[in-house]
Amino acid sequence: MNSESDRFSNLLFDPEPTQRELARRIYATAAGLPIVSPHGHVDPTLFVDENGSFGSPAELLIVPDHYVFRMLYSQGIAMEALGIPRLDGGPVEKDGRKIWQIFADHFHLFRGTPSGVWLSQELRQVFGVQQPLTGANAQEVYDQIEACLASPEFKPRRLFERFNIEIMCTTDPAWDRLEAHQAIRASGWSGKIQPTFRPDGVVNLNTRGWLENIEKLSHASGISVTSYDRFIQALEVQRAHFKSLGATATDHAALTPATQPLSPREAEAIFQRALKNELRPDDAERFTAHMLVEMARMSIEDGLVMQLHPGVLRNHNPAVFDGFGLDKGADIPVVTEFTRNLLPLLQRYGNDPRLRIILFTLDETTYTRELAPLAGHYPAVLIGPPWWFHDSPNGMRRYFDRVIETAGLYNTAGFNDDTRAFPSIPARHDVWRRISANWLAGQLVSGIITEEEAEDMMSALAVGLARKAYRLETSA
Amino acid sequence: MNSESDRFSNLLFDPEPTQRELARRIYATAAGLPIVSPHGHVDPTLFVDENGSFGSPAELLIVPDHYVFRMLYSQGIAMEALGIPRLDGGPVEKDGRKIWQIFADHFHLFRGTPSGVWLSQELRQVFGVQQPLTGANAQEVYDQIEACLASPEFKPRRLFERFNIEIMCTTDPAWDRLEAHQAIRASGWSGKIQPTFRPDGVVNLNTRGWLENIEKLSHASGISVTSYDRFIQALEVQRAHFKSLGATATDHAALTPATQPLSPREAEAIFQRALKNELRPDDAERFTAHMLVEMARMSIEDGLVMQLHPGVLRNHNPAVFDGFGLDKGADIPVVTEFTRNLLPLLQRYGNDPRLRIILFTLDETTYTRELAPLAGHYPAVLIGPPWWFHDSPNGMRRYFDRVIETAGLYNTAGFNDDTRAFPSIPARHDVWRRISANWLAGQLVSGIITEEEAEDMMSALAVGLARKAYRLETSA
Amino acid sequence: MNSESDRFSNLLFDPEPTQRELARRIYATAAGLPIVSPHGHVDPTLFVDENGSFGSPAELLIVPDHYVFRMLYSQGIAMEALGIPRLDGGPVEKDGRKIWQIFADHFHLFRGTPSGVWLSQELRQVFGVQQPLTGANAQEVYDQIEACLASPEFKPRRLFERFNIEIMCTTDPAWDRLEAHQAIRASGWSGKIQPTFRPDGVVNLNTRGWLENIEKLSHASGISVTSYDRFIQALEVQRAHFKSLGATATDHAALTPATQPLSPREAEAIFQRALKNELRPDDAERFTAHMLVEMARMSIEDGLVMQLHPGVLRNHNPAVFDGFGLDKGADIPVVTEFTRNLLPLLQRYGNDPRLRIILFTLDETTYTRELAPLAGHYPAVLIGPPWWFHDSPNGMRRYFDRVIETAGLYNTAGFNDDTRAFPSIPARHDVWRRISANWLAGQLVSGIITEEEAEDMMSALAVGLARKAYRLETSA
Repeated sequence: MNSESDRFSNLLFDPEPTQRELARRIYATAAGLPIVSPHGHVDPTLFVDENGSFGSPAELLIVPDHYVFRMLYSQGIAMEALGIPRLDGGPVEKDGRKIWQIFADHFHLFRGTPSGVWLSQELRQVFGVQQPLTGANAQEVYDQIEACLASPEFKPRRLFERFNIEIMCTTDPAWDRLEAHQAIRASGWSGKIQPTFRPDGVVNLNTRGWLENIEKLSHASGISVTSYDRFIQALEVQRAHFKSLGATATDHAALTPATQPLSPREAEAIFQRALKNELRPDDAERFTAHMLVEMARMSIEDGLVMQLHPGVLRNHNPAVFDGFGLDKGADIPVVTEFTRNLLPLLQRYGNDPRLRIILFTLDETTYTRELAPLAGHYPAVLIGPPWWFHDSPNGMRRYFDRVIETAGLYNTAGFNDDTRAFPSIPARHDVWRRISANWLAGQLVSGIITEEEAEDMMSALAVGLARKAYRLETSA
Repeated sequence: MNSESDRFSNLLFDPEPTQRELARRIYATAAGLPIVSPHGHVDPTLFVDENGSFGSPAELLIVPDHYVFRMLYSQGIAMEALGIPRLDGGPVEKDGRKIWQIFADHFHLFRGTPSGVWLSQELRQVFGVQQPLTGANAQEVYDQIEACLASPEFKPRRLFERFNIEIMCTTDPAWDRLEAHQAIRASGWSGKIQPTFRPDGVVNLNTRGWLENIEKLSHASGISVTSYDRFIQALEVQRAHFKSLGATATDHAALTPATQPLSPREAEAIFQRALKNELRPDDAERFTAHMLVEMARMSIEDGLVMQLHPGVLRNHNPAVFDGFGLDKGADIPVVTEFTRNLLPLLQRYGNDPRLRIILFTLDETTYTRELAPLAGHYPAVLIGPPWWFHDSPNGMRRYFDRVIETAGLYNTAGFNDDTRAFPSIPARHDVWRRISANWLAGQLVSGIITEEEAEDMMSALAVGLARKAYRLETSA
Repeated sequence: MNSESDRFSNLLFDPEPTQRELARRIYATAAGLPIVSPHGHVDPTLFVDENGSFGSPAELLIVPDHYVFRMLYSQGIAMEALGIPRLDGGPVEKDGRKIWQIFADHFHLFRGTPSGVWLSQELRQVFGVQQPLTGANAQEVYDQIEACLASPEFKPRRLFERFNIEIMCTTDPAWDRLEAHQAIRASGWSGKIQPTFRPDGVVNLNTRGWLENIEKLSHASGISVTSYDRFIQALEVQRAHFKSLGATATDHAALTPATQPLSPREAEAIFQRALKNELRPDDAERFTAHMLVEMARMSIEDGLVMQLHPGVLRNHNPAVFDGFGLDKGADIPVVTEFTRNLLPLLQRYGNDPRLRIILFTLDETTYTRELAPLAGHYPAVLIGPPWWFHDSPNGMRRYFDRVIETAGLYNTAGFNDDTRAFPSIPARHDVWRRISANWLAGQLVSGIITEEEAEDMMSALAVGLARKAYRLETSA
């Protein structure tokens, strides 16, 4: 068997020696390339202050990461024992060492999962932990991470630089004033962090707290949102504000990718009902479908790239939602249909080269059946990288196998890490690059492409496609 | 090319030498482990008598196995010619040798199928047939099997022991008195055979013969089932009876996994309509959806593990159903939805550690989209092994590739052979172990897990996960 | 790395040396076999005249091939610039050299796509172009192809012979007089080109131009189609006409595979409404579902094999449809359901050995869930090869992995090239044979089949299954 160092240097490469050697060679051509992170959920306030801090190891690595604690929860470990804050302020574990011990005692649950790969790489490469994490060495490892985090080199800005991040885009609600982004710019620090305009909280009328969100939008935009027309104006004001702070994209989540324009009168009527809390059964759904078309219209005008992330039934578990809130690992995908749902939007705008709409899916059946044929035809459509549960070695393999033959590589959008776990960013991009290199090696060794093409495609996969898809080249 | 013995010793292992060697090594660590068979359809009466018999080779290997005769039927061979009994008692072939000859003449139809692999292994390893079966050697092979079956070593109990079966669970209707299970226990034989409680025939109100089934339930339970309340009581009595004979699980088939509680009044009203044969259009569907929730409630109380096998449109071919009855190879899967369908049940009971519900699917699109996210969150949910058409080398590979990254290995339930073909049990478990070992070798050779972890996971896959999922450890 | 000649001789074979060597060996056993092309869209008029011509390189390779120009269009290249004729006769590029230059400048878009593989093979093997196509050598390559096309060896009939095509089936509307086919037969040329009966344009009542199609059917059949009864008679007359010119099959496209017989009265009523242009909302759908059953009835009587190609939402992009017409790369697949949809047809005719219905799908989820179980049971059902977007190396791999274990090889129908791009036919069959050989090598090296079986299966995959499925053996 290979030695430990071989193990990691060949991580995720095919065992066949010819392909493995080619994969290593192709992967190496991307070694010096920076990280381009065009979509994610890292908190920008971490970077406002030169002396920002990540908190304790548990606060950094477990408490905010629903990929991690959902797996522990699924095996019967209470969320409270993992320090996940209760909405009612009820008692939860505060001792990071105890949380860490539980995590380490159950680290075997992550065998064969992408979280397992990322966490192992992160511990090794970011924090220098050489031995695999176990219940026995849990406290020792905790000491080591804690010591790192106390040192100046582990301030958020220093890790950003060490990770060689060229650009990182956050995701921010439509009503955000973007004070953190302004402060980062004002600070003179060279790190490039850009906002992304996410209007779900005001567009999806049945969002919990919608009225408060509308008030915040009024406040942020300086436009009193008392009508549909003013709503549109306020959104346009905020889009311009986001753009002035570097934003090149918007992001839209919806249960389905339904798109269907309403007449202005209908839109106004529904919006008024929402303001009066008198929504009728289909109002929210129809309004969202309308707003996606309207957002495409705005994107054509202001050039912001649209991202569409549909197909998740959020908050499937009311006990978890009521106890702990959003994004706690209880969001479950559903069947998603793009061909018919996107027809009204694409009929209207799909041939317009000013529009760029990046489609994501958690329903992998749509890769070959719908997304690749759509992206392989419409000038406006690109396919986003494998998302969420599919941001994994096998998810990426399936993506390459199913998307490229029909859509071609150049109708895809490179990689997104899409994470709120900042220290996992290098490991996530590394997994993508390794799987990409290995896929290219497979293409090369079976005679489909040449080595020169493979190297060119590797660079595109690592940075070029993302820069181009998100118009980051022109935003520099 | 490899020799014949190499061929079988490397069966189903990847050809790449490093991975193949690791697969062999990992597989070997499970060689001495017993067979744990927590779900299947072997007839327990075979084991009641020390001198039970399997009948003729055709009666053992072809007539009862719809995996086998459906393939022959699809190529135009009449069911009658294969000895499948007609419901009307009409003439069918009785001569086992003629049936066997047809089977051997068409054995090429099974190339590349799991039935082909199992049958070949079975002939070789159970009956000592060294040459591949052909039309030319059909009668000679028949002789050899017939001679085996006539010998004392091929009595059912002796094969059970030779197969090193630690435990085998049968599937038994809710109204079963379980006389065979009682007799096996009373006989003093050490073989462990346990019943599984399957209430479909009384829960699915549109089952052909439902009223007779209700009468049998009344008779078995000693409770006259004249109302919904008494129906529930009778089920509870029978569950207790099953449990007293070792049952640790129930099994539920339904066209969909819909779950939705009814009010007691609604349940009673529907049940009364069923007793009067006055069902309204949606009654049966709504009652089944209600009963799944009710069964979860009972499972929480008595600890029986729930198995859910949904998504098959049974008896697709009326000519076959009317001529030959149930389970004749004409059951065709349909699209299956879990995320929304299970919501009512999981909202109510999904966080309860006393509940364990094992989900099976014939719609593989649900692996990554629904089942793995559900199992990777809810404490009560596990994913069952690849089922029926997917109990195959590629079915298992897809299962590992799609389920584990999101659900983790420890939210799965090990292997089921799910067969009525008793002599195929070792071959079926062997295929699972080989594919498991090869998958683990792939994980190991690409640096995702260590060899120590691989061996631990192999043992879990072979026996540990099944024992734990079905609570067989505590039932010993 | 391998040399160029190795690159192509090992094209699409697994890199693992043992499997690769076996794949080469198995592939070689099919080297001398002719091409059997039972379904495609080549224009038969090309072959009427001994001196037919393919036109310019752009007219041959780009303008008619929507697989090619859709990809260029998706990256913002106007259809007009590629010479695609506008329906309104508006100006489009006429200069083949300019079109070719654009194509060559963007040839990288085809990296990793089947079109890329076919085009590369075609340029190399049919036209002798040794260097990869680039923007730099575009005009030189154009010269070379142009010179070829001007030579006598590149007349359509000569290429047909050089390609070693045993038989090629075209696809022809139900109202076709088949003059081209008659002329080919009358010419005394030995090339075997047969029509296929495709009635969609008269069966799908909402087809644009349906009334004109009915008039053409009246004209062709000599039966004035003024009623449903006469419609059926006219179809029967035309089927007989097709059969007299060698047809062995029909072909049916529909949005869904719904099948449901109507009463004669209902059928007549709907047909009369269609004649008066007074269709009600569901009429077209119900009529198509009825006609599929009716066509199965006719197939039982005249022996024509039915092909069913469902599941595409045609003309998704109205701008492209209105500007350029049908088949312009804007057809997008949708979810397709077979189990319930085919039930009425299969209940009626699925057990009849005279019926053969070949099912195709663009919804790969149906492979394991529906198609393989149906084909593995019903005597009348076969599964067609991977279709359209799935006629690709990975599409074929998924097909083998998902179909064969349940359906068996012998319930499949071999390969179709399904192309209108005549010079791509050898490359398409070659990809199929290579992937087939490699799949068989994988089965062999993992001990599932023997080398003798692999060779037998290779021959079946290359020619035998197609001949048998389409009843070409008996039509000779």
